[in-house]
Amino acid sequence: MNAGRGLVALLTDFGTRDWYVAALKGVIASRAPRARFIDITHEIPPQDVVAGAFTLAAAVPWFPTGTVVVAVVDPGVGTDRPVLAAQADGRFLVGPDNGLLGLALAQAARRRVVRLTQRRYWLPTISRTFQGRDIMAPVAAYLARGGALSRLGPAHRAAALALPPAVRRGRTVVGRIVHIDGFGNLITNLRADRWLPARRKMGAAPFFQTASARLVCRRRSAPMVSSYAKGPPRRPVAVVGALGLMEVAVRNGSAARLLGARRGDRVTLRLRRP
Amino acid sequence: MNAGRGLVALLTDFGTRDWYVAALKGVIASRAPRARFIDITHEIPPQDVVAGAFTLAAAVPWFPTGTVVVAVVDPGVGTDRPVLAAQADGRFLVGPDNGLLGLALAQAARRRVVRLTQRRYWLPTISRTFQGRDIMAPVAAYLARGGALSRLGPAHRAAALALPPAVRRGRTVVGRIVHIDGFGNLITNLRADRWLPARRKMGAAPFFQTASARLVCRRRSAPMVSSYAKGPPRRPVAVVGALGLMEVAVRNGSAARLLGARRGDRVTLRLRRP
Amino acid sequence: MNAGRGLVALLTDFGTRDWYVAALKGVIASRAPRARFIDITHEIPPQDVVAGAFTLAAAVPWFPTGTVVVAVVDPGVGTDRPVLAAQADGRFLVGPDNGLLGLALAQAARRRVVRLTQRRYWLPTISRTFQGRDIMAPVAAYLARGGALSRLGPAHRAAALALPPAVRRGRTVVGRIVHIDGFGNLITNLRADRWLPARRKMGAAPFFQTASARLVCRRRSAPMVSSYAKGPPRRPVAVVGALGLMEVAVRNGSAARLLGARRGDRVTLRLRRP
Repeated sequence: MNAGRGLVALLTDFGTRDWYVAALKGVIASRAPRARFIDITHEIPPQDVVAGAFTLAAAVPWFPTGTVVVAVVDPGVGTDRPVLAAQADGRFLVGPDNGLLGLALAQAARRRVVRLTQRRYWLPTISRTFQGRDIMAPVAAYLARGGALSRLGPAHRAAALALPPAVRRGRTVVGRIVHIDGFGNLITNLRADRWLPARRKMGAAPFFQTASARLVCRRRSAPMVSSYAKGPPRRPVAVVGALGLMEVAVRNGSAARLLGARRGDRVTLRLRRP
Repeated sequence: MNAGRGLVALLTDFGTRDWYVAALKGVIASRAPRARFIDITHEIPPQDVVAGAFTLAAAVPWFPTGTVVVAVVDPGVGTDRPVLAAQADGRFLVGPDNGLLGLALAQAARRRVVRLTQRRYWLPTISRTFQGRDIMAPVAAYLARGGALSRLGPAHRAAALALPPAVRRGRTVVGRIVHIDGFGNLITNLRADRWLPARRKMGAAPFFQTASARLVCRRRSAPMVSSYAKGPPRRPVAVVGALGLMEVAVRNGSAARLLGARRGDRVTLRLRRP
Repeated sequence: MNAGRGLVALLTDFGTRDWYVAALKGVIASRAPRARFIDITHEIPPQDVVAGAFTLAAAVPWFPTGTVVVAVVDPGVGTDRPVLAAQADGRFLVGPDNGLLGLALAQAARRRVVRLTQRRYWLPTISRTFQGRDIMAPVAAYLARGGALSRLGPAHRAAALALPPAVRRGRTVVGRIVHIDGFGNLITNLRADRWLPARRKMGAAPFFQTASARLVCRRRSAPMVSSYAKGPPRRPVAVVGALGLMEVAVRNGSAARLLGARRGDRVTLRLRRP
């Protein structure tokens, strides 16, 4: 039941002009001759861990179980930040412990994470500048050949993706747009489970009381609705996205274009009195 | 004799920055674990069905029989335009019924087209915004595994690529440049079999009387010749291209650069008196 | 021990917008149905043989033995320049004889080169404009299927990469930056074995007397050191790179950015009196 066995997907900020992606794939192919490659993207803006984390989390669930996903957006290469391998809902993830894997791990129902310490699975010589090739690629090859995660190192608690903090002032919470996806949806740093009142039933997902709040972004008010489809045309609405973060969207349109919004813009959550 | 069995080629306007292409491939790999992917391009200008159709028709004949080609340039996604699968000279095509497949189908000697109606071959949930992933990808996987075209839906007559109409005034036909290929050749909306006098012999392709006409583009006259190689250096000539459309070319050079021509420019066909 | 058997890597200046790369892969897949493709890059600046040669030489050593690497940056297409196939340290190279393969061949310990003359391994019809597709792709397919290099044509001496000449004036050699790699290292046309005094021991690689020289680039002096790691932070140093060419580097930084250097800039080697 491992349709993805031998499949290696890659997400980096290396671009496609130089030989770096080829080096990753060459190392993997040398050690896992039957590996087949899928490029998620190599055009994450350089060192933009947040953009990488969102794109990765959106792509990963579409791959079959057994797929090994290597993610390299790594401003800390050459420092002592750990390198991780993880199993998340049957897929494998390999990447630096800087939050890049954070959203993909958080959305998985089952996950195990190890810190890479067993050098026998790495290249014999490790550079300080290209650990994607020297550590992550050979570990990915090992997993693609069916290797066991637990051999790679001890269990580890992966760093969550660092988003700027939201600030509460009375019945207002001030946050920011942290990502704009390809549809033009404005994803914020406002976690629904932290800021929205929810009704909980035993054993069920929380049900957010959307009627109790609205988001304000670039002076436009976006009432909270339970799904995109509930939105009127050409008007912004606020929804809770797949990652549990509040976002501003426009049905069949681009909220980014309609509002002229950019990453980093302020977003205000206004909560009604209960 | 199906060298392309399991090969899936993709042409889209998705770009390569986001997770959309990965989602297509992930869905296909989940359902056809041995699929191997070839990207034709993902940089068709957004929603430019004409550019997509020309690029697709140029690429498809180079693939082995059995290859499944998925093409997604789909401004009508979310409307009721049909989605198609086709078999054309032994290769499979999957895409929206908006003319995108029109040139690739027209140049095939043998073709069968069905409209996708059998939902059992689709993803369980169909979004209105991403039918490439939800309908076309799983159908491509089914065909890549050796599935039968006829199971996917009823026979259908595919939409031809909509090109702007050419207008005849006496012995002059006014057309337009509809595509500029990578060599700088200027492809027009003037169909040779409609506007050029031809001698026909039973059972043979028509022979166009090229001496009888010339194209005028940006005030330069391009005499019709039977092949590029007949052209003098650095002078524009008119030829009938592989798709049966008249085009302006320069031997070993770029007609677009020589004439400063752009897509949409007017082209005039002047026919001699018989 | 041929982990790369069936692996075909490609480097071109075709870009990724048009159907040219797809045609290469389609021809290869038609004749080698089990071929698996890895794109090194298709974004070599158009007709920039020097940039292609450096990127190729950097990528090739990472591929497993048996890999077939097709390289097409070919301003001379349509002229009588030969087309080559080579075996270099167990990998295969296919490309025009214009220096593009020069660095990759020069860095190999073992190499054999043939000129492609046996038309039975080519497409039946050869265009003058697209020999990548018509000659190189079918030959790559033949090698990927395990074909013998010697069948493709007679032994040949491949053209070296043409770099601008360096000029000696007394104890000074004036050269140029010929390539800037992705780390910002400035690679020059100064061959260490030509210009640096070396101590040689029988049977060992030459040991360059680095203390005897320094490079001057954009008015900054870069003392020669034996490896990057010996450099002080934020100061340019000169080293002998993997290809035997002198280069200016900054430890953990970009020499290009620090010095504001560009390809073509003058570099002066100053040799001490012995």
